[in-house]
Amino acid sequence: MFPYPQEIHQFPYPDYRFMPSESNERYRIPSQQRLTFVLVHGSWADAHFWDGVAAALFSQGHTVYTPEYAGHGKDPNKNVTHAMITKSVVDFITKLNLHNFILVGHSFGGTVIQKVAEQVPDRIKRLVFWDAFVLNDGESLADELPPQTRQGFEQLRAASKDDTIMLPFPLFRDLFVNTATFEEARWMYTSVIPEPARPLFEKLDLKVFYELSIPKGYVYFLQDNALPQGEGFGWNPHMSTRLGQFRLIVGDGDHFTDTRTRPEMVAQKIYEASRD
Amino acid sequence: MFPYPQEIHQFPYPDYRFMPSESNERYRIPSQQRLTFVLVHGSWADAHFWDGVAAALFSQGHTVYTPEYAGHGKDPNKNVTHAMITKSVVDFITKLNLHNFILVGHSFGGTVIQKVAEQVPDRIKRLVFWDAFVLNDGESLADELPPQTRQGFEQLRAASKDDTIMLPFPLFRDLFVNTATFEEARWMYTSVIPEPARPLFEKLDLKVFYELSIPKGYVYFLQDNALPQGEGFGWNPHMSTRLGQFRLIVGDGDHFTDTRTRPEMVAQKIYEASRD
Amino acid sequence: MFPYPQEIHQFPYPDYRFMPSESNERYRIPSQQRLTFVLVHGSWADAHFWDGVAAALFSQGHTVYTPEYAGHGKDPNKNVTHAMITKSVVDFITKLNLHNFILVGHSFGGTVIQKVAEQVPDRIKRLVFWDAFVLNDGESLADELPPQTRQGFEQLRAASKDDTIMLPFPLFRDLFVNTATFEEARWMYTSVIPEPARPLFEKLDLKVFYELSIPKGYVYFLQDNALPQGEGFGWNPHMSTRLGQFRLIVGDGDHFTDTRTRPEMVAQKIYEASRD
Repeated sequence: MFPYPQEIHQFPYPDYRFMPSESNERYRIPSQQRLTFVLVHGSWADAHFWDGVAAALFSQGHTVYTPEYAGHGKDPNKNVTHAMITKSVVDFITKLNLHNFILVGHSFGGTVIQKVAEQVPDRIKRLVFWDAFVLNDGESLADELPPQTRQGFEQLRAASKDDTIMLPFPLFRDLFVNTATFEEARWMYTSVIPEPARPLFEKLDLKVFYELSIPKGYVYFLQDNALPQGEGFGWNPHMSTRLGQFRLIVGDGDHFTDTRTRPEMVAQKIYEASRD
Repeated sequence: MFPYPQEIHQFPYPDYRFMPSESNERYRIPSQQRLTFVLVHGSWADAHFWDGVAAALFSQGHTVYTPEYAGHGKDPNKNVTHAMITKSVVDFITKLNLHNFILVGHSFGGTVIQKVAEQVPDRIKRLVFWDAFVLNDGESLADELPPQTRQGFEQLRAASKDDTIMLPFPLFRDLFVNTATFEEARWMYTSVIPEPARPLFEKLDLKVFYELSIPKGYVYFLQDNALPQGEGFGWNPHMSTRLGQFRLIVGDGDHFTDTRTRPEMVAQKIYEASRD
Repeated sequence: MFPYPQEIHQFPYPDYRFMPSESNERYRIPSQQRLTFVLVHGSWADAHFWDGVAAALFSQGHTVYTPEYAGHGKDPNKNVTHAMITKSVVDFITKLNLHNFILVGHSFGGTVIQKVAEQVPDRIKRLVFWDAFVLNDGESLADELPPQTRQGFEQLRAASKDDTIMLPFPLFRDLFVNTATFEEARWMYTSVIPEPARPLFEKLDLKVFYELSIPKGYVYFLQDNALPQGEGFGWNPHMSTRLGQFRLIVGDGDHFTDTRTRPEMVAQKIYEASRD
């Protein structure tokens, strides 16, 4: 019937039905859905990158795995390919026969979980990218770097004896741990070792990835400037929208620092992108 | 006189005149300017969308109206046009003879307050858009959707018997209530019913709107991903800058959740965009 | 060796080495690196713009200078050039023989510190831009304004008797102090006087600036809408990325208000962009 017969909706109206939520404190919600996480780190890091975040997730009742991959951690061999890195994670998952887990990738780890998802899609409950690369089919990570950064990486690569790239401290300090104190930055830099260069420059076939229907989440931190924010680059929306439908969660942090200074916050944001 | 004769401005200098503000607590300011609000909801919602926010504004001393419009709420007729929806709100305003009020639109409600403002401009003190569409002259809401979303809506529309679009839960969960718990998401989804499709696809004549000189505000929530953020889409700056001069207020929330979990925060942000 | 021999990284693992940071409270860190700051204000402001921020930095043990420049403060002469403004700051620095300081520019002050840095690069430890213009070589500030704003400024300039631009209160309220209460806005507006127009329209030779290797930081406030955010305009990333490598710090504030309402927050954000 038109015109629509109006009731007078002036507050307070008789059929008011607001029921306030009980979750006022948003970072220590007591009961969480129990999930299994497989956390995949990025470049210039090893599995210990996740130590604080893993502990925070574990303390909330989740099961947490932090696989190491080829060319990283205690592996002395730096001569690795992206396929070898992917195989490390796939082998980890199949060896432990993991199912129904949240596969999380950070930074370069985004490209790894893209390829892992192609190989073991049925085991994965949800893919979560945290300030992570989501490459187009046929792209390399290097294709997504600003020209100046890419050239810098190419020069560092050429200057190395073992086809690695060592991140200079000033770059690490400005782009990876910009919100840290100097002491925190120095301390975190002690974990940084030369990164195998080749996987960053390999173009990846991702046709299968873009056919997968696994649910996806993207965690974006507002102070993360490892990629310039916007104007053709950046984590969100430039990378994230490639996922098609995804759940966005935004936090206030940078690329590395909060894993050390506020791991509970990082864990909560990853959880928010992961839960049903 | 040049060169400018410098005083030595080293702190502390004698004519220091900083006077700190007394408003340290920013979300419970005791005395607010008393305003009248007319709150216009968006799609897949009815006037009860505003229950918590209306209560919060009312508790601060404001007068609050939440008009229902054609095709929504208790109206059984889904066969409505954008003009009928606009007429519902205009009739509400004229019937109650409201003047000097803040007209707030959320989401699709942005297109409604654009058209309402064309008809009763002299009654409106300020227009406030909260993560709301601001259409260009001649556009439809569907014109502003990413191609994939638009196609999805067109398919859902074609599949319905009464020219409506029902929002599937996975889409609602990822795009409208991404920060909610699963329980909150399920509970909020119980209010979602099929939305009349036609008003979303009607192209609107907005020439008059773009001649109006009513003051404007835009409230943008950082975790709102109902439209992809940036790169040709999104609430701010893509929609907001169409308003010309406007007052921007930014908050940390998503498209729907905070009306239930943090209505005082939503009310405060709307108030900040509305006050003189 | 490949395949990489996996340890089972399930948390808790034996070599867990997370060491939590002690800096939980992020805005009152007791011991800061002692720095010297030279703070350069922008348009429609004078050196007192910095009063609260200078006091906050001083209370943390820093040395703080707030130079006034030609055409501003107590200078009765409004007929100034950008070069005269730059000379004021350079003279201040050389007269006091300042070295190893952080040179901070806000808004129009960004263009000033670009030119000051060209003249005394060796004295500067770091350049910090806070929601400040970073002009390309050959640009004027006016070149970076949206067309509508630029036209408005040109009309205000043409209407003035002394080649100045007075910022109308509605524009100041919406674009510079959007988060303030009306009372705060009115009070801050009492400090606004006509701004010399010419420096805003002068095209600047910045070839030397773009050859400098001084470390740089950029502080961006999320509610700052003095320039529209994104889509070819705005502070970050549009201006900031012109700096090449820089340290990004993000805060929640607008263009002017927080200097009065939350100067400790502003000071902390500037410090975070400034420290080693």
